Amino acid sequence: MADRDVEDPLLAETVDSSRQSNGNSSLKRRKYRRSKSTPTEDICAGQTSVESLQHPESIFGNKIHFKQVVALLSAYLGVGAFCFFLVRDQIKGQKTNVILDAVYFCVVTMTTVGYGDLVPDSILSKLLACIFVFIGMALVGFLLSKAADYIVEKQEILLVKTIHMREKYSANDILKEVETNKVEYKFLTALIFLIILIVIGSLFLYRIEGLNLFDAFYCVCATITTLGYGDKSFSTYTGRIFASFWILISTICLAQFFYCLAELYTERRRKSLVKWVLTRKLTISDLEAADLDNDKVVSAAEFVVFKLKELGKISKEDIDMVMEGFKFLDVDQSGTLTKADLVNPGSSNS
Amino acid sequence: MADRDVEDPLLAETVDSSRQSNGNSSLKRRKYRRSKSTPTEDICAGQTSVESLQHPESIFGNKIHFKQVVALLSAYLGVGAFCFFLVRDQIKGQKTNVILDAVYFCVVTMTTVGYGDLVPDSILSKLLACIFVFIGMALVGFLLSKAADYIVEKQEILLVKTIHMREKYSANDILKEVETNKVEYKFLTALIFLIILIVIGSLFLYRIEGLNLFDAFYCVCATITTLGYGDKSFSTYTGRIFASFWILISTICLAQFFYCLAELYTERRRKSLVKWVLTRKLTISDLEAADLDNDKVVSAAEFVVFKLKELGKISKEDIDMVMEGFKFLDVDQSGTLTKADLVNPGSSNS
Repeated sequence: MADRDVEDPLLAETVDSSRQSNGNSSLKRRKYRRSKSTPTEDICAGQTSVESLQHPESIFGNKIHFKQVVALLSAYLGVGAFCFFLVRDQIKGQKTNVILDAVYFCVVTMTTVGYGDLVPDSILSKLLACIFVFIGMALVGFLLSKAADYIVEKQEILLVKTIHMREKYSANDILKEVETNKVEYKFLTALIFLIILIVIGSLFLYRIEGLNLFDAFYCVCATITTLGYGDKSFSTYTGRIFASFWILISTICLAQFFYCLAELYTERRRKSLVKWVLTRKLTISDLEAADLDNDKVVSAAEFVVFKLKELGKISKEDIDMVMEGFKFLDVDQSGTLTKADLVNPGSSNS
Repeated sequence: MADRDVEDPLLAETVDSSRQSNGNSSLKRRKYRRSKSTPTEDICAGQTSVESLQHPESIFGNKIHFKQVVALLSAYLGVGAFCFFLVRDQIKGQKTNVILDAVYFCVVTMTTVGYGDLVPDSILSKLLACIFVFIGMALVGFLLSKAADYIVEKQEILLVKTIHMREKYSANDILKEVETNKVEYKFLTALIFLIILIVIGSLFLYRIEGLNLFDAFYCVCATITTLGYGDKSFSTYTGRIFASFWILISTICLAQFFYCLAELYTERRRKSLVKWVLTRKLTISDLEAADLDNDKVVSAAEFVVFKLKELGKISKEDIDMVMEGFKFLDVDQSGTLTKADLVNPGSSNS
C-alpha cells in the first residue's frame, strides 16, 4: 500500500504535502517546477517530482505522528496503571491514593527514575515492574524522542520570531533563518524547555513538598537524570499528580537536550567539512577523477556526484549499487540511457 | 591540521588506511584502481581516491578511539571516586570499604541506577552527585556508546565465523557476509552480550549476595535498565567490587541493544525502499527527469544522482549547494567544466 504512494513520481508531491499536515509542511513543501533552462534548474525541477522520496520514513508509513504517540503512551500508562492497581497490595511503601499511586509508580518505573518510595513486594509485582520498565525504555527511546523532536521543531520558529522580534523579519525570513541554523535553534529550544522544567519542578517541591530550595533542586536533578536515589521524592497527593506529568516530560526533555547537544557537535564538524570541500580549489586531477564517462568534460551531474562523495553524503557502495541497475538498463552499452534502451525487452525488472 | 590529510586526494587512501589500524580496517579498506574502461569502473576508480572523505568523522579527528574512551572513563571514575572519598562522611547508608564505596557510589550515580543504598547527606555531596550524574550521562551517551559500537562490530566477525563454522567460509566470505547483513549481526551480537551479562549478574547476586534466583533476576533487571529501586542492591564487599564493573558494562550493553533494535528497524525499511527503487521499471518521464543537461540521453552520473535522490540519500538542498559551486566554476557557461574553466581567474576560492 505504501508503495502505491510513490508509484507515479509526478503525483508524489501532492501525496507528500497532504501528509505533512502539521507545522512543518510550510518548511518542507516546495513549489513544483519543471522548467529546463540551466543545468541547476533542471536538477531542481527534474528531481522535485520525487521530493517525497527524500524522506523514506514518511513513505513507508514509518513517520510517527504526534497524536499516535500520545495515544500509544496513554494506552501504555493506562494498562500499566491498571496492572499495578490490581497488585496494589503487593506494592509496599509510602501510599496516598490507590489509583494515583498506580499511575505514579508506573511513570517512575517506565522513566527508570525508580525512587524506591514504592517498591514491588511479590513475584508477580516484581515481574510486572521488569516487563514495564523494558517496554517503557523502548517506548521512551523510540516514540517519545520523535515526539519531542516534533515539539522542539515547532517551537523553534516561535523562538526565532521572539529573538528577531525587533528586526521585523518576514515569515519567509524566519523560515529561512530556522532552516539555516536548524540545529542551533533546536539545541537552544531544548535548553530553554529544560530550564523551565527545572525551575517549575524545584518551585513545586519547595512549595508543595516542603523541601528547602537546595533539596528541591537536588531532587529535580536526581529525577530528570533518572537517578532517583529515593531519599527525596514526591510523597503527597498533589505532589504525585504533578510528578506523574512532570517526570515524564522532564526526563524526555533532558534526553532530548543531550541528543541536540550531540547533533550540534556533529553539525559543526559537518559544516566545516562542507565549507572546506566546497571552497577548495579544483585541480586538474580532480577534474579527471570527476569525469566519469571520460569525455574530457565534467557535466553538472558528474560534479554533483564527485562533490557529494567528497562530502561523505554518498559512498562507493551506493554508487556501485545504482550502477548495477544502470548497466542492466543500458542495453546497447552506449554508456548512456536513451528511450531506445527503455523499449528494449531487457529493460524490465531485474 | 586535519585539512592537510585530504589536501591531495591521491594520498588520502594511504592516510585513511593508516588511521584504520583496528579490526575494521580490513572491512573498510579497498584496493585503489584507476582504470577507465566502463562508466562503472570509472566511478569506482575516479572516486576511490577521495575514499577517506566518506567518513568525515575520521578526517576531522572526531573518531573516538577505544583506548581514549577507556582512559577518559578511568579518569572520570578516578576523579569521581576521589571526590566522593573526600566527602565520605557526608554520604549515609550501608558502607563497606571507604575507597570501594566511593567507586561504587560513583558508578551507581553516573549510570543513573541510583539504588539509594548510599545517598549524599550534605549540600556539598549532593551538589557533587548532581554534577557527576550530568557529566556521567553525557559521557555514557557519547563516548561509551561509540566504544560499545566498536566492540560489537569487532565481535560480529567472530559471531559470523561461529555460525558458519561448518560451512568452511573463507575469511573473505565472512567479511562479505558481515557487510551485507551488518545491522542484523550487530543486533544479534548485542543480544548475546546482554544475555550473558544478565546470566552472570543473576548468578552472582544468587551466589554472593544471597538473593533467591528470582530476586537476583529482578535486581539485575532493575539495575541494567537503571531503574534502581534500591530494595535489592549490592551490599557486600565482593558484591560492590563486582558491581562497579558489571553495572557499567551491562547498562551500556542494554542501551546498545535498544540502539541496535532501532537500527535494525530502520535498516529493514531502508532495504525495502532500496529494493523497490532499484527494481521498479524506468519510465520515459523518469528519463526526462534524470536528464539534467537536457541532451536527450541519461549519462551514468545523471542516473546515479537521480536514483540516489529517489532513495533519499541526497536531497535537493545538497544538490543546490554543490550546483552553486559548479556555476561559479563554469566560467564559460558551457554547462560543463573543462580544463579551460580551471585556468580562468574566476576559478579561485569563492
